[in-house]
Amino acid sequence: MSSSEFSIIDDFFTVKSTKGLPPILGVGDDCAVLDVPNDKQLAISTDTLVEGVHFLVNSEPQSLGHKVLAVNLSDLAAMGATPTWASLAITLPSINEEWLAAFSKGFFELAEKHSLHLVGGDTTQGPLSITITIMGLLQKHRRLTRSGAKVGDSIYVSGAIGNAGLGLLKSRSGVVDLNDHDVAAYVRPSPRVQLGQQLLGMASSCIDVSDGLAADLNHILQQSGVGATIQHQDLPLTDSVQQHMIDIADEVWPYSTGDDYELCFTLPSIVNIDSIDQRLEKKITKIGVIEEQAGLRIQAKSGELINFSKGYEHFNGK
Amino acid sequence: MSSSEFSIIDDFFTVKSTKGLPPILGVGDDCAVLDVPNDKQLAISTDTLVEGVHFLVNSEPQSLGHKVLAVNLSDLAAMGATPTWASLAITLPSINEEWLAAFSKGFFELAEKHSLHLVGGDTTQGPLSITITIMGLLQKHRRLTRSGAKVGDSIYVSGAIGNAGLGLLKSRSGVVDLNDHDVAAYVRPSPRVQLGQQLLGMASSCIDVSDGLAADLNHILQQSGVGATIQHQDLPLTDSVQQHMIDIADEVWPYSTGDDYELCFTLPSIVNIDSIDQRLEKKITKIGVIEEQAGLRIQAKSGELINFSKGYEHFNGK
Repeated sequence: MSSSEFSIIDDFFTVKSTKGLPPILGVGDDCAVLDVPNDKQLAISTDTLVEGVHFLVNSEPQSLGHKVLAVNLSDLAAMGATPTWASLAITLPSINEEWLAAFSKGFFELAEKHSLHLVGGDTTQGPLSITITIMGLLQKHRRLTRSGAKVGDSIYVSGAIGNAGLGLLKSRSGVVDLNDHDVAAYVRPSPRVQLGQQLLGMASSCIDVSDGLAADLNHILQQSGVGATIQHQDLPLTDSVQQHMIDIADEVWPYSTGDDYELCFTLPSIVNIDSIDQRLEKKITKIGVIEEQAGLRIQAKSGELINFSKGYEHFNGK
Repeated sequence: MSSSEFSIIDDFFTVKSTKGLPPILGVGDDCAVLDVPNDKQLAISTDTLVEGVHFLVNSEPQSLGHKVLAVNLSDLAAMGATPTWASLAITLPSINEEWLAAFSKGFFELAEKHSLHLVGGDTTQGPLSITITIMGLLQKHRRLTRSGAKVGDSIYVSGAIGNAGLGLLKSRSGVVDLNDHDVAAYVRPSPRVQLGQQLLGMASSCIDVSDGLAADLNHILQQSGVGATIQHQDLPLTDSVQQHMIDIADEVWPYSTGDDYELCFTLPSIVNIDSIDQRLEKKITKIGVIEEQAGLRIQAKSGELINFSKGYEHFNGK
């Protein structure tokens, strides 16, 4: 750790909070030291965001600080874990204090909301890129995975899909107005952390929608050894997304847009959906059923299957 | 996680080992799940290496796979922690299978040596850079830190210093011969993991020498609220480094070269140095004494202090 790096961490990334579970030893030594409670297991995930690939060049830094943490929190949400700690590795072309202050603000506002402690990290010089390793706690042997979906289970998704994809298109064309719902969905996603925890012991499988609903649901299907049919008319779509689908004449577009950070999960038919307190977070919508026949099918209201090859090409070409 | 990313991880980074402490749930879900034994605490550290900054452009990938893990293991060594798990985030300009196979080989050879399990990560497209978050275990409340050095303690360093700095110079000039001791010290450093564990309960402070001996020892001095004098003639230097110092007429050069990944630590005078089994790893050398007067002084054999401003400029300018 160089002297200048030391001062960056001191100036922008040393926020002490007593909420949650503070580290035994935090930023400033060779390692942080963490105490995992005896009845808990540690859920851990790593995600990197690269400028020009995962976010637009010259992205507004406060939103970026929010988003990079949100993307990682979403992985904990998909396991039902309670966020506790994170490390942040940030590679920057040069030290820009204004940028760092705004990035840090976005990061810590969301961290504070989830009682998450930043316990370490690294700052290096190079093309802008950010890697977070996030940690959360699970009761021992109690977690959501991708591999438990069973034939007959219902498939649900939280919130609406496609908005972040539309927000990306709007941002690319120069509209970065956080009052626009689609733009906000893209640059300031809300990870479904509470919903994930509520699903523990109920959902048979769960994943977060980061690469597009079809690609992510396919991970569940493959890892569970099952297939599914989605009822196209049940897909939760806002007016803006429906209008965009008409504009581009592509009815499967929302299946392949990414960055929604909603949860897609399966519930055994025995689970009473009302037992999930929907007031706490976004509404959830049943979109289909798990079946024995492998593969993912999309059924129109008419009963006919919709040709989905285009939707697959989208995400295979990512 | 995109489809292509999935296949990279499957092809190159899914090495199952039963040594050490395998994860409860490994690569392939939204998070890995880890079980920290009840009597242990988790030591965690993150380091990023960026092409052109921390390693030369077109570095040989097998050595790079070794080095990026070694750099992170060195942080665990400095805490006395036993390596257990790591996550690997790798950003690549494009998928190059030959490169990935070699990188993976270098990484897993060193991981296997330390019974370390890769439990997750992320592969993204962009300028080459690698971030590892490494985890190790410590007995509860038993660790090495930077903050415990006391007046009268002796200062030690393992191995020799300056070789990696010289190896960098040789590599830059086109010599990348692993049979050259200096080049090997730079591209394939050996983290002092066993030595760190041996120092638990004995050393009053410890740090790894990554930014240069002076800069790193200064972290100990500042965090311990003490100063030190080093006896210049006691510095462990190989013939090659001594010759280089003569060639460039700079007697303080080895204090400011980085990448040695040796341990610098302090021992109370009550500790019998023979109790540290030196056969297991590199020799250790006493180089100075902790003093009350703040700051770091370097004393020549004549008793005069050596002007060290140049040495400081080196690392402040990093």
